[in-house]
Amino acid sequence: MGMVGGGPGSFIGAVHRIAANLDGQIELVCGCFSSSAGKSLETGRELYLPENRIYPTYQEMILQEALLPSDERMDFVSVVTPNHVHFEPVYSALEHGFHVVLDKPMTFTLDEAWRLKEKVEQTGLLFALTHTYTGYPMVKEARRRVLRGDFGKIRRIYVEYPQGWLSDDVSEADNKQAGWRVDPNRSGIAGCMGDIGTHAFNLAEYVTGLKTVELCAELNTFVSGRRLDDDGAAMLRYEGGARGLLAASQIAVGEENSLFIRVYGERGGLEWRQEEPNTLLVKWGDRPNEIVRTSNGYLSTFARHNARTPGGHPEGYIEAFANIYRNFALALQCRLEGVEAKAEYLDFPSVDDGLRGMQFISTVVSSSVGGGRWLPMIER
Amino acid sequence: MGMVGGGPGSFIGAVHRIAANLDGQIELVCGCFSSSAGKSLETGRELYLPENRIYPTYQEMILQEALLPSDERMDFVSVVTPNHVHFEPVYSALEHGFHVVLDKPMTFTLDEAWRLKEKVEQTGLLFALTHTYTGYPMVKEARRRVLRGDFGKIRRIYVEYPQGWLSDDVSEADNKQAGWRVDPNRSGIAGCMGDIGTHAFNLAEYVTGLKTVELCAELNTFVSGRRLDDDGAAMLRYEGGARGLLAASQIAVGEENSLFIRVYGERGGLEWRQEEPNTLLVKWGDRPNEIVRTSNGYLSTFARHNARTPGGHPEGYIEAFANIYRNFALALQCRLEGVEAKAEYLDFPSVDDGLRGMQFISTVVSSSVGGGRWLPMIER
Amino acid sequence: MGMVGGGPGSFIGAVHRIAANLDGQIELVCGCFSSSAGKSLETGRELYLPENRIYPTYQEMILQEALLPSDERMDFVSVVTPNHVHFEPVYSALEHGFHVVLDKPMTFTLDEAWRLKEKVEQTGLLFALTHTYTGYPMVKEARRRVLRGDFGKIRRIYVEYPQGWLSDDVSEADNKQAGWRVDPNRSGIAGCMGDIGTHAFNLAEYVTGLKTVELCAELNTFVSGRRLDDDGAAMLRYEGGARGLLAASQIAVGEENSLFIRVYGERGGLEWRQEEPNTLLVKWGDRPNEIVRTSNGYLSTFARHNARTPGGHPEGYIEAFANIYRNFALALQCRLEGVEAKAEYLDFPSVDDGLRGMQFISTVVSSSVGGGRWLPMIER
Amino acid sequence: MGMVGGGPGSFIGAVHRIAANLDGQIELVCGCFSSSAGKSLETGRELYLPENRIYPTYQEMILQEALLPSDERMDFVSVVTPNHVHFEPVYSALEHGFHVVLDKPMTFTLDEAWRLKEKVEQTGLLFALTHTYTGYPMVKEARRRVLRGDFGKIRRIYVEYPQGWLSDDVSEADNKQAGWRVDPNRSGIAGCMGDIGTHAFNLAEYVTGLKTVELCAELNTFVSGRRLDDDGAAMLRYEGGARGLLAASQIAVGEENSLFIRVYGERGGLEWRQEEPNTLLVKWGDRPNEIVRTSNGYLSTFARHNARTPGGHPEGYIEAFANIYRNFALALQCRLEGVEAKAEYLDFPSVDDGLRGMQFISTVVSSSVGGGRWLPMIER
Repeated sequence: MGMVGGGPGSFIGAVHRIAANLDGQIELVCGCFSSSAGKSLETGRELYLPENRIYPTYQEMILQEALLPSDERMDFVSVVTPNHVHFEPVYSALEHGFHVVLDKPMTFTLDEAWRLKEKVEQTGLLFALTHTYTGYPMVKEARRRVLRGDFGKIRRIYVEYPQGWLSDDVSEADNKQAGWRVDPNRSGIAGCMGDIGTHAFNLAEYVTGLKTVELCAELNTFVSGRRLDDDGAAMLRYEGGARGLLAASQIAVGEENSLFIRVYGERGGLEWRQEEPNTLLVKWGDRPNEIVRTSNGYLSTFARHNARTPGGHPEGYIEAFANIYRNFALALQCRLEGVEAKAEYLDFPSVDDGLRGMQFISTVVSSSVGGGRWLPMIER
Repeated sequence: MGMVGGGPGSFIGAVHRIAANLDGQIELVCGCFSSSAGKSLETGRELYLPENRIYPTYQEMILQEALLPSDERMDFVSVVTPNHVHFEPVYSALEHGFHVVLDKPMTFTLDEAWRLKEKVEQTGLLFALTHTYTGYPMVKEARRRVLRGDFGKIRRIYVEYPQGWLSDDVSEADNKQAGWRVDPNRSGIAGCMGDIGTHAFNLAEYVTGLKTVELCAELNTFVSGRRLDDDGAAMLRYEGGARGLLAASQIAVGEENSLFIRVYGERGGLEWRQEEPNTLLVKWGDRPNEIVRTSNGYLSTFARHNARTPGGHPEGYIEAFANIYRNFALALQCRLEGVEAKAEYLDFPSVDDGLRGMQFISTVVSSSVGGGRWLPMIER
Repeated sequence: MGMVGGGPGSFIGAVHRIAANLDGQIELVCGCFSSSAGKSLETGRELYLPENRIYPTYQEMILQEALLPSDERMDFVSVVTPNHVHFEPVYSALEHGFHVVLDKPMTFTLDEAWRLKEKVEQTGLLFALTHTYTGYPMVKEARRRVLRGDFGKIRRIYVEYPQGWLSDDVSEADNKQAGWRVDPNRSGIAGCMGDIGTHAFNLAEYVTGLKTVELCAELNTFVSGRRLDDDGAAMLRYEGGARGLLAASQIAVGEENSLFIRVYGERGGLEWRQEEPNTLLVKWGDRPNEIVRTSNGYLSTFARHNARTPGGHPEGYIEAFANIYRNFALALQCRLEGVEAKAEYLDFPSVDDGLRGMQFISTVVSSSVGGGRWLPMIER
Repeated sequence: MGMVGGGPGSFIGAVHRIAANLDGQIELVCGCFSSSAGKSLETGRELYLPENRIYPTYQEMILQEALLPSDERMDFVSVVTPNHVHFEPVYSALEHGFHVVLDKPMTFTLDEAWRLKEKVEQTGLLFALTHTYTGYPMVKEARRRVLRGDFGKIRRIYVEYPQGWLSDDVSEADNKQAGWRVDPNRSGIAGCMGDIGTHAFNLAEYVTGLKTVELCAELNTFVSGRRLDDDGAAMLRYEGGARGLLAASQIAVGEENSLFIRVYGERGGLEWRQEEPNTLLVKWGDRPNEIVRTSNGYLSTFARHNARTPGGHPEGYIEAFANIYRNFALALQCRLEGVEAKAEYLDFPSVDDGLRGMQFISTVVSSSVGGGRWLPMIER
């Protein structure tokens, strides 16, 4: 694996590396960790990389790696830069034959998303988007139970993602992560909705297998002087008639990372909370609700495949993240060995999920700018 | 106290009686418990009432009681009928000089609500609406903390009320309570939003002290053949810029009575859940969240006044209900004794709250019928 | 009902009155509320009793009431005094033909307990001890499920009752309830173990239907100068081989009233927590644990009989307390009407439970005084 | 790092490897993974080790590695075999100059524990015991708060560790992990108490900084035919007068891995639950209890040093395990670089903790065999 981004001060870069490393299947062999060559070198050295595999620019990295013998060069590239530096390195990597793992949201603009989708399809290369939260075993269990019809036809979806860390005006000097997220030149047209609303949107579509067809949104900016939304909500209509409510906020003081989903069908429902990820609550009308827990024998193969420890030994965010890398690596290994990958291996967020996310961003922003009116999902 | 409604099969009538009785300050002295004189007699006898105080019609009850000497006749009337039989008995009781306790929503139509409000103001009689949930000590504490500015200016409100008991088609034969609630001839223009959405709406305005100015709503009917909404959601704009999200559902299978509110201000926030009513979670950005609990010395006088037991001895729905009756009775007693009532005594839902609820119903229905567009609150 | 005790400053007297009153079946008709005739009069007047039914001594009350015509005199007496004033009024009441409700622990000494038991059996009168916590619907459900064998043979019982309110030295001047509880002349030989340990002991025997046969205990006094235990623990051996662990403390700072029981059998188990009393967690080895909730159709008749509201409308401590009074009253009514009482009506704590509690107190104190050695339960 | 044990079917070996690998500081370079040379080879190959570093016996591994140049040979050995194969490889590794990480309980007998302690002290080599649960950030925070006196003098400790997975008779054929744990020839004189009771014992001493001086225990075997205890409890007396209650069970059906500790001092207390490890509840008598959460700025340096993600991104068991390896590696690196290690680095379980655990096992077994009598902690 080679990495683009993840230099000094990056939270998500470090997480990607730990996650990729966790299961001992993936080795970081090269990287360009910053737009500053000096910082890239600094990070590369801390990671014990040989100096000739620490690159000053991602362009050079892709070119040089492509020239290496196939058993030496990186197998895939992991791109963990801010949103405005997603498209170029990924597109280039695909062009040079590298598989890609990319942080979300997929691109800076919807147009870029379409171009990436087309490029992925054209090249046939593997592509994973790190919508981390669908990597949790209990989220996979939730999806299986909905898809196999346990709850009947889905009627109502509530999904929310409240955080509080942007309640005050956070300067970039103080917090590198806050800095680019509130800057439209690096984040794109949405702030909170792009950063975490897309996770909520993706989670709901993943768990239910339903596509949103229309929505009505309102985005808000509560912190004075901020140029992007720091809060928002949307009502959603799904194919088949289900209705959704989505809330995302970064000014919900006292909340950490409370992604939470509830789904109700004709006969039953479920709820899952990211901050207690090893529990899935399953709900019934005529009998007691059930506490479904990770790593029990009664779970689906999808849930069991994505857990490493026995019941009661909590797995968390890093493990969920690692599941994306592990499945990506397993799928890649199958491809390299010419065998068909199991369905569990291919269960990671795709370029289509990334495109959906960019469509969601475009649509919520348009709806909100239009005064909060219902709009069909913007396709392109 | 005299009662109108609450005959055989009524859930809420029995609750009103237990609540009124709980603190030993109020005695049921007469009633007309059903539109059927026979059923009224049956219930009255079960309640050990003398037969001459069990009336076949509420009209007769009000007339006859008004003729009794003042130390014999009922002091006030409690009206617990379905929505379409709220206005007439209440209006008549007020005209005959009786104070009134009324179940929510206040009336069948918004016009009736205005007429009741004017009548209450004209007569100067005491009037309480049983929005039970604001009777909980921790809800009162929540309001105090918001009003005294603990959290700074309020930005974001989430309030929700999911239930599951109407997930299937419930016939009136099976369930008297379900019957009238899904019948537009008795419930009014809204089903779920009138029955429980109004509680959520009222709770949010009570806790924050803010008025809704605009909303955008979508009401849904998921159970085939049902004539009123059984689910819905609304985005709300409050005076001063706060934003709200309100969800109410009676098809959320597996949910019992999960009224839940969260409020976030500039500096802190809170959450309260009806099913664990003795706990108020208080949230901060820079220090640990706190578990505020009923009956502790650090609470406001409003919270302490409305609790009966020491900490850790849970009080519930009946006690919250009884708080409305107790405060109403204390306020009435002050009036009878010619002394000024304490602020705690007067802290029960008023005719203005009832009018707000009817305005809310009119506005959500209009917004939804209009395809889910933003509307200012309908005043009249 | 007549009451002995419950004068100014009494917490439990007020709770008894609210509980007795809750369901409208029991009327307070007389009382002697304090050993001070003046205070008795003061309380009686506040309760709107006629002055001739407010007595200066319990002796006079029992004598005078016995002289009244049977349809006028109290049907039963409720004794809510401190422990050292339990035996005399109860014994006297029984002698004069009155049924009795008594607060726990039953008596001041084990010998008194035996004498009460014999008197109750000899007179055949109804007797209830207010071990409140077995009045909760979910505790009744727990017992039913154990008794019907859902979990197989019971192996392990954990029961605990931590409170924090006596962590500091509390003077009687500040807190009347603390005062007598820490005074061996009024409380008896045990402090914490008598006050709340007995509740834990009773709860475990009630839920499992098993009798303790041996125990090993250690009682502690952490607050300097205190003359009775304020903390303790015991290991218990039950008939049939089950093992128990019991902890009780009044110096567990920050705990309110956290009575908590867990029971494990061969095939399954359960847990119940007094501070969230409407939930019973049922546990399994091979399938998800279940959240059993009050007022659902799938519950036993015992649980349903003891609930008043639909699911999700929390009932609490007062309702549990009222269940003892309600069942006592229903059983009394059956006796007065000459019909057989349903099993649900007779499901209130008996004189045998009271005797068990006194035996428990004697045994834990003896075990602890003996350095913490195993002792068979002291019978007499 | 070299590994002894952890071959096919081992749960804990895989966890050690993931944990050691997590932070990219430790590389597995050699191993002897099984007493069967063939199985050792099989596992070594799966781990991509060069064949010449996969050893058929641990004796050969230690000898051969010691002969390698210092920059090639393993820096330390990780021993993850069943208890009866702890002493020999560890003693030998120390003799040959290798630092050691060892799974708990430390040895098969108390005598071995003393000999290891003496060897570690004599050689001055680094030694860590994987009492995983003290690796959690919130456990470290708990210890800091107790040690700095937040709660005053500690009075009462409750610690418990219920599991349910050995409720039935589990054959070794079905479950390799169950097999050796219930076999006295491999586990030692205690089953449940050795396997998980020691964790509970260690956690209590770690969090409070107090040493147990006396205890009274009862061990039970509920599953017919089992030769070691599968359940037990102990009352403990700590230096300074604190009292403890310890419960451990492997027949608590429906429990997964519910290690739970509560500590109460004169002024406050705390509770921490392994299954929700990112929360520490802090308790007070005069103000609301607080929800202290991982990765917040208000935490001690010890807690912050041991977390990798921002608040609300749950870390779990693997991360706690990895903290032992990471701190061990950081301390080792300091030693290799000749600089003093920070206190945070040295905060991993030591040979003294291992010895305490073996003393605990000896004492609980002796107390129980003696009929459940109080014994001072057996030193040697």
